[in-house]
Amino acid sequence: MSHAVSPLAPKTTPTMPSIEGVRFATAAAGIKYRDRTDVLLVALHEGTTAAGVFTRSKCPSAPVDWCRASLAQGRARALLVNSGNANAFTGAKGVATVEATAAGAAAAIGCRPAEVFLASTGVIGEPLDAGKIVAVIPEAQGRLADGPWLEAAKAIMTTDTFPKVATRRAEIAGVTVTLNGIAKGAGMIAPDMATMLSFLFTDAPIGPAALQGLLDAAVQGSFNAVTVDGDTSTSDTLMLFATGAAKAAPHIDDAADPRLAGFRAALDDLALDLARQVARDGEGARKLIEITVSGAVSKASARRIGMSIANSPLVKTAVAGEDANWGRIVMAIGKAGEPADRDRISISFGDTLVARDGARAAGYSEAAAADHMKRDHVQIRVSLGLGEGTDTVYTCDLTKEYVAINGDYRS
Amino acid sequence: MSHAVSPLAPKTTPTMPSIEGVRFATAAAGIKYRDRTDVLLVALHEGTTAAGVFTRSKCPSAPVDWCRASLAQGRARALLVNSGNANAFTGAKGVATVEATAAGAAAAIGCRPAEVFLASTGVIGEPLDAGKIVAVIPEAQGRLADGPWLEAAKAIMTTDTFPKVATRRAEIAGVTVTLNGIAKGAGMIAPDMATMLSFLFTDAPIGPAALQGLLDAAVQGSFNAVTVDGDTSTSDTLMLFATGAAKAAPHIDDAADPRLAGFRAALDDLALDLARQVARDGEGARKLIEITVSGAVSKASARRIGMSIANSPLVKTAVAGEDANWGRIVMAIGKAGEPADRDRISISFGDTLVARDGARAAGYSEAAAADHMKRDHVQIRVSLGLGEGTDTVYTCDLTKEYVAINGDYRS
Repeated sequence: MSHAVSPLAPKTTPTMPSIEGVRFATAAAGIKYRDRTDVLLVALHEGTTAAGVFTRSKCPSAPVDWCRASLAQGRARALLVNSGNANAFTGAKGVATVEATAAGAAAAIGCRPAEVFLASTGVIGEPLDAGKIVAVIPEAQGRLADGPWLEAAKAIMTTDTFPKVATRRAEIAGVTVTLNGIAKGAGMIAPDMATMLSFLFTDAPIGPAALQGLLDAAVQGSFNAVTVDGDTSTSDTLMLFATGAAKAAPHIDDAADPRLAGFRAALDDLALDLARQVARDGEGARKLIEITVSGAVSKASARRIGMSIANSPLVKTAVAGEDANWGRIVMAIGKAGEPADRDRISISFGDTLVARDGARAAGYSEAAAADHMKRDHVQIRVSLGLGEGTDTVYTCDLTKEYVAINGDYRS
Repeated sequence: MSHAVSPLAPKTTPTMPSIEGVRFATAAAGIKYRDRTDVLLVALHEGTTAAGVFTRSKCPSAPVDWCRASLAQGRARALLVNSGNANAFTGAKGVATVEATAAGAAAAIGCRPAEVFLASTGVIGEPLDAGKIVAVIPEAQGRLADGPWLEAAKAIMTTDTFPKVATRRAEIAGVTVTLNGIAKGAGMIAPDMATMLSFLFTDAPIGPAALQGLLDAAVQGSFNAVTVDGDTSTSDTLMLFATGAAKAAPHIDDAADPRLAGFRAALDDLALDLARQVARDGEGARKLIEITVSGAVSKASARRIGMSIANSPLVKTAVAGEDANWGRIVMAIGKAGEPADRDRISISFGDTLVARDGARAAGYSEAAAADHMKRDHVQIRVSLGLGEGTDTVYTCDLTKEYVAINGDYRS
């Protein structure tokens, strides 16, 4: 089952530079899909450091368990990703599969299995045949190259309607370094979930603890600020690999080092770019929704209220219907359980103030609000009037197509 | 905009007895709808006690604020409900409206305004014209009668597709008492929310503190166990009124009095009956979903995991598509944040075991599970294998019709 490319897909695709120390190849292992690639093998220079952030699900997939265990050493030599099967809720068979595929990649790359990181995305509960993946590794290893990145992004897609890539440059002590990232987003047709995978790569020489600190910070305002349907996958995986190939730059081991200011900004921006692409490719999405909550008692409180709005089916269906339905925003603020004073709340759609101090704004123009709702990027701004806490989250609208994708078909 | 009666509507409507001390009338005030009643006035005998449970929204409607304040005295002489406008997020105007309508009802009934309870359901953020309601009160007062209850249930409907009534009998120390209830459920076309109102009445002589204790207990397994879309309204109101007209029964002031055992069971059952009717009339619903979680570390933990499953768009769309998609159940268990051990989880659809000990069950019959999914009452059973905590929650499927009702139209 294929779906048309999202109307929210970026109009242009960036030219992706190579990153020294990163080579990869894709392959078609026939795990689930026909006539497309479904395996990505990435080889990383010796000395590459690694950081990762994983799903908070209490039912994580076997590859997530594997990555968490391997990450303790902070070093990576390979990444092996497959689409079509999540290897989740697969019991002892799932563990055997991750061991076999890691061993296969380790043999091809010439490293220890614990230096191989794994991710799988697709159907849950079906055994994943390690043999199909292991069989394509030697041939893929023979084709390792420093591009094209768009092919890497394509191989990890499930029901994504477009491949997601982004790139940034930054300077560390006057030396230019590069950051590349790929992601897959929300959508599988059957039987499945909004599984999010993203892999970031840089040639900057940064120690593993610092890298983890930078990634933990970057995820807060980007991937953790995105929701399509509030359904957390068993497989969500975000990893950052630093090859250290930009040897002219100083090696840095502290995430708080002021020389990382530019790198940190570039990483945050790269992560946000990819996260917004994920929201733009939410299942059935026709509108990207950006929700900014200000005046909350804290940033964490603003985040929870923003997510309450972003996950509300009534808000999301109203946006799908291009309806400036601010009553539903009030509802979603009220149900968040966070401090809020009904009579201080103001709400805007774009630049149009629709509600102020707990009631409809004087002179509110329904026409102006309706105009804003027709755009493909809808901005909702909520001011609580209580404190200084501000945060922004991203989601997409809830359309009949979402129901069709998730309810009509089953493989 | 009207919608066809839900395919899940009860096949028969119970014959509702009268309750001594309860008289009511409905009226058409033209608040929003044409050609239908939208006001319900209930007069209650002197000495009637009252209990209430209200929305936990931080943005409650003006009538909810009013009821909470009046409930302190535990006495009621009148109930005035309107549909078509929720009088929520209406600021000072909303407060003036509740004061004016309570005064109007108090004058007609001959009581103090603080003995009048109010509820409003419908559009949020639009000023509610008290004049329209006050204008119909005297005429309605002249028509007060002890039936028909179905008309009372109809007057409080918004996008409900059928009126919701239920009745039970119980004995208190050998004396038969009656309990009647009405409810409105999930659904308004525009612009609005799944607003839940329910009013229960009995002739039993029970003091206000005991009544509140009984209601607090009854709501846990009934209304609080129901979700249509996870969106908590600004107006949710559940009230229980006891006229005490069954004078042969002993007056009881302690909710834990053993003589209330039968009454308590009847009340719990009445509330569950109405709550299930609400789920059956969820917007766009074609299937009632009953989710039982057992083996959790506590009943509260089982409730949270049940609600995580019940509110998952991916689970609800799968049920709409008659897809025995147990991977999405695993996902929803995992995201609940409650203790769960992936490798001990078992999942059944109806009587068909689909997953056991963290992997697909040996001998699982997809055909048997698919048969169960075709029913209009789908049962999902999850066993966590950790403890003794068990709970059951109710929801409905998520269909394109839900998106249509909430996204396509706006008044």
